[in-house]
Amino acid sequence: MANKDKKFNIASGAAGQKMYNLIKRLYPICRSITGEGARETLKIISQKISIKIHEVPSGTKVFDWTVPKEWNIKDAYVKNHNGKKVIDFKKSNIHVLNYSIPVKKKMKLKELKSHLFTLPDYPDWIPYLTSYYKEEWGFCLSHKEFKKLKEGIYEVFIDSTLKKGNLTYGELYLPGRKRDEILLTCYICHPSLCNDNLSGVALLTFLANSLKVLKLNYSYRFLFIPETIGAITWLKLNEAGVPNIKLGLVVTCVGDSGDLTYKKTRAGDTLLDKAVEKVLSDSGDQHKIIDFFPSGSDERQFSSPGFKLKMGSLMRTPYGCYPEYHTSADNLDFVKAEKLQDSLNKYLEIIYILETNAKFISLNQKCEPQLGRRGIYSTIGGKKNQGISQKALLWVLNFSDGEHSLLDIAARSGINFRKIKEAADLLLLKNLLKKENKTD
Amino acid sequence: MANKDKKFNIASGAAGQKMYNLIKRLYPICRSITGEGARETLKIISQKISIKIHEVPSGTKVFDWTVPKEWNIKDAYVKNHNGKKVIDFKKSNIHVLNYSIPVKKKMKLKELKSHLFTLPDYPDWIPYLTSYYKEEWGFCLSHKEFKKLKEGIYEVFIDSTLKKGNLTYGELYLPGRKRDEILLTCYICHPSLCNDNLSGVALLTFLANSLKVLKLNYSYRFLFIPETIGAITWLKLNEAGVPNIKLGLVVTCVGDSGDLTYKKTRAGDTLLDKAVEKVLSDSGDQHKIIDFFPSGSDERQFSSPGFKLKMGSLMRTPYGCYPEYHTSADNLDFVKAEKLQDSLNKYLEIIYILETNAKFISLNQKCEPQLGRRGIYSTIGGKKNQGISQKALLWVLNFSDGEHSLLDIAARSGINFRKIKEAADLLLLKNLLKKENKTD
Amino acid sequence: MANKDKKFNIASGAAGQKMYNLIKRLYPICRSITGEGARETLKIISQKISIKIHEVPSGTKVFDWTVPKEWNIKDAYVKNHNGKKVIDFKKSNIHVLNYSIPVKKKMKLKELKSHLFTLPDYPDWIPYLTSYYKEEWGFCLSHKEFKKLKEGIYEVFIDSTLKKGNLTYGELYLPGRKRDEILLTCYICHPSLCNDNLSGVALLTFLANSLKVLKLNYSYRFLFIPETIGAITWLKLNEAGVPNIKLGLVVTCVGDSGDLTYKKTRAGDTLLDKAVEKVLSDSGDQHKIIDFFPSGSDERQFSSPGFKLKMGSLMRTPYGCYPEYHTSADNLDFVKAEKLQDSLNKYLEIIYILETNAKFISLNQKCEPQLGRRGIYSTIGGKKNQGISQKALLWVLNFSDGEHSLLDIAARSGINFRKIKEAADLLLLKNLLKKENKTD
Repeated sequence: MANKDKKFNIASGAAGQKMYNLIKRLYPICRSITGEGARETLKIISQKISIKIHEVPSGTKVFDWTVPKEWNIKDAYVKNHNGKKVIDFKKSNIHVLNYSIPVKKKMKLKELKSHLFTLPDYPDWIPYLTSYYKEEWGFCLSHKEFKKLKEGIYEVFIDSTLKKGNLTYGELYLPGRKRDEILLTCYICHPSLCNDNLSGVALLTFLANSLKVLKLNYSYRFLFIPETIGAITWLKLNEAGVPNIKLGLVVTCVGDSGDLTYKKTRAGDTLLDKAVEKVLSDSGDQHKIIDFFPSGSDERQFSSPGFKLKMGSLMRTPYGCYPEYHTSADNLDFVKAEKLQDSLNKYLEIIYILETNAKFISLNQKCEPQLGRRGIYSTIGGKKNQGISQKALLWVLNFSDGEHSLLDIAARSGINFRKIKEAADLLLLKNLLKKENKTD
Repeated sequence: MANKDKKFNIASGAAGQKMYNLIKRLYPICRSITGEGARETLKIISQKISIKIHEVPSGTKVFDWTVPKEWNIKDAYVKNHNGKKVIDFKKSNIHVLNYSIPVKKKMKLKELKSHLFTLPDYPDWIPYLTSYYKEEWGFCLSHKEFKKLKEGIYEVFIDSTLKKGNLTYGELYLPGRKRDEILLTCYICHPSLCNDNLSGVALLTFLANSLKVLKLNYSYRFLFIPETIGAITWLKLNEAGVPNIKLGLVVTCVGDSGDLTYKKTRAGDTLLDKAVEKVLSDSGDQHKIIDFFPSGSDERQFSSPGFKLKMGSLMRTPYGCYPEYHTSADNLDFVKAEKLQDSLNKYLEIIYILETNAKFISLNQKCEPQLGRRGIYSTIGGKKNQGISQKALLWVLNFSDGEHSLLDIAARSGINFRKIKEAADLLLLKNLLKKENKTD
Repeated sequence: MANKDKKFNIASGAAGQKMYNLIKRLYPICRSITGEGARETLKIISQKISIKIHEVPSGTKVFDWTVPKEWNIKDAYVKNHNGKKVIDFKKSNIHVLNYSIPVKKKMKLKELKSHLFTLPDYPDWIPYLTSYYKEEWGFCLSHKEFKKLKEGIYEVFIDSTLKKGNLTYGELYLPGRKRDEILLTCYICHPSLCNDNLSGVALLTFLANSLKVLKLNYSYRFLFIPETIGAITWLKLNEAGVPNIKLGLVVTCVGDSGDLTYKKTRAGDTLLDKAVEKVLSDSGDQHKIIDFFPSGSDERQFSSPGFKLKMGSLMRTPYGCYPEYHTSADNLDFVKAEKLQDSLNKYLEIIYILETNAKFISLNQKCEPQLGRRGIYSTIGGKKNQGISQKALLWVLNFSDGEHSLLDIAARSGINFRKIKEAADLLLLKNLLKKENKTD
């Protein structure tokens, strides 16, 4: 236990830079909800943590959905009548409408334009768009480049394939002492976009790396899945195991410079919500806590009424709330090593609370025990004590009544969870507390 | 259903002017809690809606009260020693203390003064006062006129009668699909006073007019009664039917220029309270919500502990909170057609919610259904959709779990009720929802 | 009942001065958790109220604690090499570390310094420190005097004894109609310190003096005990009677010039909490309400999980929140007669609520009774009534439904408790209310 607690502090400043480096390595790959990009991504992740890679065939029925055909792409461009590439997939993979069907055709500007997408409000940025479930082709480009296109004949080429294949995802299960699981998920389907969501992929990888060496109470399941269809597929294939999942977090948008934002679970008052709120308030950092809403990321599926999993999401600036979202500006400059580090620290702190929270029973229910003669209280009344917080000791003793967990006590007292835990550890050592049997 | 929903929008701008015209027609009549003024008022109302007129004999015991003698008045004045009328009922019927007994007598100014009532703080206004249950006579006049009265002998004349007769009230019952009733009441006992409460009489008349053409779920009961004794009398005579009343509103002070104010039900958290709060917040208009208090209007009787009816009151400026209240300044200038219109619209919107609110069950409890292939979701991921709100669709799907009604979902999401309803209608049409059987 | 109600107003302005005088008389005595100082203090109190004085032998086991040896002291000083007393117990009894063991010894300044305590931040003030459970000696002095001490040999003399003896406390029990008890405690262990806590001793004495002449519903128990060990000892010796205690207050820091502060009970929403909050809000005075915390005074023991007594504490500036706390500056200038008076008035008002609060049943559950014909309502409708509040009458009638007590009604209506009580008394007199049998 003591060993494990120490381990929770291992996230050194170096992890931030390592996460950033992983993002940098994954950034150029053209990912989608299926295809070789996902496989390559998972392969790189598997060099850090031993994820198991699953392949689910196209056509598999998953609740109301069907696993789509597999999409792959080699090249794509639009050439003007001079043969100059005016749009080039090789320069940015988000130039192609993700899941575009193959095209090789000449056409006038007018026809081409009905397949072009831009962001007039941000004329330098390329938007990121997809058409997974309707067969379509298109190109995304900056509004600035779009305005330069002149009348004439254009050659359009998309060297993609859309065929029976597989949906690919990665999974890591770290068994703990209990079968109760904590589910940690990210999505791997976005191509060259950093905050949404290579930041999530990197954080989850390093979080798994930190936890795998620990002796854990809960079991932990890490999912690297395509968004929406991946969550739906996983839930369908693993429905029997869902009841083991006690709570979870969707990891996304954790690398930008904004304050931390916690999107609560659908129920709103779970152990997870309390733990995250405590971590954020203990940190003293500016932060926001927002209510659950059923748009967003995969909490939409995990928290659907048939599952009602207690899934929160700890982000920095939430998806859709920063202009760079789903554009070429969500790039390697937009995410920062130190912010990734800070986000990882918060995730570790949440897990620290989940792992160590428990109810204890004070062995002196009637009146306080005499702490002074046990050497854990100032003997000179009125003098301030060094070291352990005397207030924390008294809070733990008075509220270790079988009703309050350490987290409850920390929340009610306003004292940092770590200080409350420290006080409980000392009281345990001095045989003034016992662990409540009912708690696991 | 679709037909009915359309109907809820019929309250055109013309209704405001029509309500104002009705007020103008009723304004000159000298009303009281009994007598010919009430009968004439009800007769005029019955030209718009087919109310049934009830007569309850004087002396009828109604709980702790007794229906009083019927009061009628033809003329009243005070003449000075020159024979000049210094106070004249013909100029304003509130000059006479309402329910004054007959008087014909000469007296000195000093004696007269003990029967005169003024408002020193508003020297141009005549106060409105009553003495229903103690036999008394008196005159009300402006403080300005009062100060002009000189020593001398005055001739006092009140040509009133106070005899066995009846208490008169009007009632309209619109049967709906369910026996559950919504009670809508106003009081008809005030003479020439516009906001309190000819505005209520006019609104209730036109509200009934709007509802009578609709196919309704709830049954609706409209009462046009004298305040207090009328409510008590109605409750006594209709005690057996009271359990059918699920909720209700007392309509008063709905024509002035102030913001809307909702006085909550005694319980404070009923369906009605939620519906009114949603209508007000959806409107974006400035408004106030105040807690129940047992002084006020007929909610005092309907919410007495033996009945505890869930009665709210949606007003503009509440009784007693504007200086013109119960004075001659609550006149035809004080109420506005557009404010009457706005108040009526809010009442209709409340009833729209009550009529259409229901619990639904999503037919895809596990994960979202695929909206895209049903043509009700943007197929180009990341593009904004026109028309139906995608957020509303997701809210309805995720929270149609058997626990949340549309109103619950609208309240929790912060999305307008109409948009939530629209989303639910579309999902029903697409066979993605079913109505919960338990709800009515 | 009527008699008793009158009695609650007896706390005249003179009581403030009398409390101050008692503090002045008790101030010079050197008190501690045991010893002659406590006995002398209790003897002086017993001249005002007939407390019973208890002696509990040293060595008595009380839960996790043991009653300590009895400490007494006659004299103490530190002399410099000129024989001049540089620290003198006779000038202030807090110069001696409370519970110091006897010492008679010469030593160098360096050795002496390890036994000296000062407050560098408040260089004129002497700190108050204790060492009850570790045998130690020491002196407290102002930092200013401390800095004057020059190198040299000092003669240290403490003429104290620490021997088997007793712990002494005082108790007064005022039996009421019910066995249910209200516990009122103060601590008598501090030497020359006025606000903490001679103010509590004085208030409790005069509160007992006020209550002893009344016919009471609750029984009242007053404890004059040494802090911590006294509370623990009393709880151990009186464990069987503890279930009778329904609620209680720890009286401390009630004489300074700060606003009133109420520290809530551990449960936080008891009858006591509601009563104190109502008294404070009715008063219109600035005040603070703070949550329970398990450091503080004897509520720590009374509210330990094995007892969970509902103990609040109504203070002015709480212990530890004013710089004079536990220093020589908590002196006769720091407490004020008028503040003691104001605190006493608030305690009496709380007890007034506890004594008179009850649930009533309106005898007219269906609709209001007709108050006008009973002469307790304005007969001229619209005129303001003198005397009893008509709003209070309507609140009492509507909410005397078997669920709401007078305190509940007062809290919900925002009307002063006394006005609500007055209305209820009048309604009882008019046979419009009856007392609910279940209440006591």
